[in-house]
Amino acid sequence: MTPNNEKLPESIDLTHHLSAFSKARPTSPLKDLQKYWGKPGLISLAGGLPSPEVFPFSSVGANILLPDTFPARPSLSAEGPLSWLLNLFSSGKAKTTRIEIPRYANTPGGLDLATILQYTLASGHPKLKEFAKAMADRVYRPAYSDYTVLAHVGNTDGWVKAVMTLCNPGEGVLASVWTYPSALVAMRPYDIQAVPVAMDGQGMRSDALRELLANWDAEERGMARPHVMYTVPVGQNPTGAVSRPPPSACIRLITASQTMEANRKKEIYDICVEYDVVIVEDDPYYFLQEGPYYPRPYRAREHDKKDDSLQKYIDSLTPSYLRMDYQGRVIRLDTFSKTVAPGCRMGWFTCNPKFAERLERQAETSSQAPSGFSQGLVISMIEQWGFDGFIRWTQGLANQYTIRRDYIIDRFAEEFDLRVGVVPEKSSIDYFTGCSVYTAYPKERSRLMSEKATLEREALLSFVPPTSGMFLWVKLHLERHPRYGSVPTKELEKLLWIELAEAGVLFGPGQIFAAEYDEIAAGHFRISFSNAEFNDLKKGISIFAQVLVKFLRD
Amino acid sequence: MTPNNEKLPESIDLTHHLSAFSKARPTSPLKDLQKYWGKPGLISLAGGLPSPEVFPFSSVGANILLPDTFPARPSLSAEGPLSWLLNLFSSGKAKTTRIEIPRYANTPGGLDLATILQYTLASGHPKLKEFAKAMADRVYRPAYSDYTVLAHVGNTDGWVKAVMTLCNPGEGVLASVWTYPSALVAMRPYDIQAVPVAMDGQGMRSDALRELLANWDAEERGMARPHVMYTVPVGQNPTGAVSRPPPSACIRLITASQTMEANRKKEIYDICVEYDVVIVEDDPYYFLQEGPYYPRPYRAREHDKKDDSLQKYIDSLTPSYLRMDYQGRVIRLDTFSKTVAPGCRMGWFTCNPKFAERLERQAETSSQAPSGFSQGLVISMIEQWGFDGFIRWTQGLANQYTIRRDYIIDRFAEEFDLRVGVVPEKSSIDYFTGCSVYTAYPKERSRLMSEKATLEREALLSFVPPTSGMFLWVKLHLERHPRYGSVPTKELEKLLWIELAEAGVLFGPGQIFAAEYDEIAAGHFRISFSNAEFNDLKKGISIFAQVLVKFLRD
Repeated sequence: MTPNNEKLPESIDLTHHLSAFSKARPTSPLKDLQKYWGKPGLISLAGGLPSPEVFPFSSVGANILLPDTFPARPSLSAEGPLSWLLNLFSSGKAKTTRIEIPRYANTPGGLDLATILQYTLASGHPKLKEFAKAMADRVYRPAYSDYTVLAHVGNTDGWVKAVMTLCNPGEGVLASVWTYPSALVAMRPYDIQAVPVAMDGQGMRSDALRELLANWDAEERGMARPHVMYTVPVGQNPTGAVSRPPPSACIRLITASQTMEANRKKEIYDICVEYDVVIVEDDPYYFLQEGPYYPRPYRAREHDKKDDSLQKYIDSLTPSYLRMDYQGRVIRLDTFSKTVAPGCRMGWFTCNPKFAERLERQAETSSQAPSGFSQGLVISMIEQWGFDGFIRWTQGLANQYTIRRDYIIDRFAEEFDLRVGVVPEKSSIDYFTGCSVYTAYPKERSRLMSEKATLEREALLSFVPPTSGMFLWVKLHLERHPRYGSVPTKELEKLLWIELAEAGVLFGPGQIFAAEYDEIAAGHFRISFSNAEFNDLKKGISIFAQVLVKFLRD
Repeated sequence: MTPNNEKLPESIDLTHHLSAFSKARPTSPLKDLQKYWGKPGLISLAGGLPSPEVFPFSSVGANILLPDTFPARPSLSAEGPLSWLLNLFSSGKAKTTRIEIPRYANTPGGLDLATILQYTLASGHPKLKEFAKAMADRVYRPAYSDYTVLAHVGNTDGWVKAVMTLCNPGEGVLASVWTYPSALVAMRPYDIQAVPVAMDGQGMRSDALRELLANWDAEERGMARPHVMYTVPVGQNPTGAVSRPPPSACIRLITASQTMEANRKKEIYDICVEYDVVIVEDDPYYFLQEGPYYPRPYRAREHDKKDDSLQKYIDSLTPSYLRMDYQGRVIRLDTFSKTVAPGCRMGWFTCNPKFAERLERQAETSSQAPSGFSQGLVISMIEQWGFDGFIRWTQGLANQYTIRRDYIIDRFAEEFDLRVGVVPEKSSIDYFTGCSVYTAYPKERSRLMSEKATLEREALLSFVPPTSGMFLWVKLHLERHPRYGSVPTKELEKLLWIELAEAGVLFGPGQIFAAEYDEIAAGHFRISFSNAEFNDLKKGISIFAQVLVKFLRD
């Protein structure tokens, strides 16, 4: 796949989106003196740099796993995923390779501590930017070639920098009704509010977006029409909204009409062009694309069909908004938090050069560059693995999360009577619309249930199996609770949350994920399947089943 | 030395200093649910944590220098500092010890990657906070016991967080006339301006501060009286203002009336109490206290007198503003950038608990915690060294910078005819007041110069030898330039800067360090002696001498 060679059209200038905060930020001082900075042979006594001779670290190294440590497709051996994982780590069987960063490089241009632990450009080490560029060219393939990449210290930081670059106090930011709470909380101090847009099973609804923007009444709203959108397009946090249609065999079995997510993104992008909106694509779960959930009897057959070659894998990934961004109105946020570790506190922007320049100035006077230890160790790992190795690593990673996703839903099937139904076009639970929804009923009663009326009366919870990310987003049927209507749903949700906590399991309280809290949509938990030990996942769902049945009966 | 047990008086409440930005920042959501977070035995499926089993790093380690790698007092062997340093590193003679962080700790509570590379509290790892607390209790000794420490990602980040916590748009921040430019640039986007306070040889003048605050006319100034002060009290950047009086022998030799800096700090603190000002103490150079410069003939004798025991060394350090802070109105910023390496991107706040809580909320929705690699490696190093080891390391470090400071001033003595004079109470160059000022004259003419008039005519530059930090702050006698008066001094400074750059040496242009640029004070270079190789330092000063003599003659 060759990258696009089209440059951004000169007629497109998006600098009117820059905020007063951003415009007030000076460019580097004494611009005409800068040509001397870093000129070879010059003796520089200008900077405030400590001597690398007095860094106490003489060398830093690590043992790293190999890129193919985790299988490229789910292993369905008799042993099962759990015992396989335990074998890998507790027996010390996982093969590792060594990376080492010396104080001074042995070869010119080689990575060394003298450079990477020194003050560096806020935009990141050239080798980090090289990697980010390769990721764009090989995976995201932006619709223009003169994009810029630069480092940030994690997507939350990246998002705040984007907000400060684009938004003025009193403005609004378009976001799905359910969204990542930290993103909303981060805007509030600057008097920037979320403007919720309705969702369906694919995430933000394009028709709702258009309606909102077309009919925007600034006076009535007390706010100009929003010109910035926040979106978590893959593994939508918290709902994990569907990103891809299941393959045909599966459609016949469990699902309904679903369009390609790429189409939805294109629709949304085109609306953003029409109404001059900048899209900030916060995409931490991009490499955790798990694909559709197959109930156990069909799983092995579906997995066997999978072509796990590297290029096929890359092609199977849902397109980033960058792919359709012919105007440079997308700021994409990538992070190493999920592909390597959250402790990296490192990620990068991909965006047009003019936004990038403002973002860099902002980084220079706040976070500066990501940690040199993080940059050094991650770059060194990528050099050891090669770019393809990194992609292969994410492939294995996605499969580890697929195993975990399958494992937790299998536990629901074990603990509840789990039934699948397709929710029609206009559902009261908007993000279920057009999806195969799994509804859980009490197990011990399942034989008695046949009538639709009984079923409705007995429903405990519903969910759509996520196709990416780390979370199961569960709608609780609190309307079954005896005190429903007399006690706010929010309170019922909290009561149940506390009963569960007392019984020994913690879920994410749904209400913290609402852009604007809505009683009708209330009563959710976000259940993370990404981290707990498999036994704890099993135990947690078992406790949930017992407590929930009792709670809704009392 | 036992730490103070006095708690902050309840009558003192400084929360009225919190900015609108800070007040609008919510406390953590669902406070009443938080008691369950992290409760042992609970199965948590609430967080969005990746599994540490899929971190590609199996172990991370380093070879670190020993705490006593660098001598505790300047070595004055026949070899000289240069050859000694070269020996240490190029021959690989520097002894190192090994630290290693495993994926899972072998002992309970031990440092491991599963924890340190995971999402963590924004306030930093408990072991990092333990270290910061030990530093406060053993070295800074705040005047109250219930202070809080929490991490930031470097002092620039810490400063911006403090500004956002304390200042509203349109407000002013008190700062010395010459100050760290990034601190000023960082405030500008939020429409917060520096309010310059006059300096003398000790830094900010307390009489000038009192006068400014006492006579503040909000209407005339178009700004409320400032309630926040920014200060770099040690190794004042850029001037390196004096922090300690030289010992008596030296006073007789080269210096004038100088009071203890502690007295000045106390005066300023008391004025800040009177006018309700919060002090932000940005102190990156605290452990680079080099002490007075002794001309070569006296140096060996003075160094021999030095007691280099650890406690004497700690006692010799100038007191932090924390020591006099009985009201909790100091926010102190510490960083590992100079004691370990800038690439750590890690430091900490020490301040009252109420400011700390707001700073932590801000970190949660922006930078989050410092890099886990940085935290892990630095904590592990400190565990290996012990707290005393860390202090011993800083002692060696300060001496390395002392050698460098002495080396560069010795080069001035070599390249110029360098003469010492005490500048009287009211100097036109304010930060020279009360100091021993070194003035450089052309070397080849020195024998002809005897009369005061000739001396004045021939002066090339003047400086006060810094007693801490990394910089020599040089006042250029541009008034000697033939075009002085007809061309702005700023332009002359720039012309000279360019001539020097063309000749092969770069200095920091003085004008970027001015809180408010003042033509009278114009014409400075900030010369860094911290990083360049000794040969380059020598060569750089030699080029400077040639170019400067020629420039002022033409």
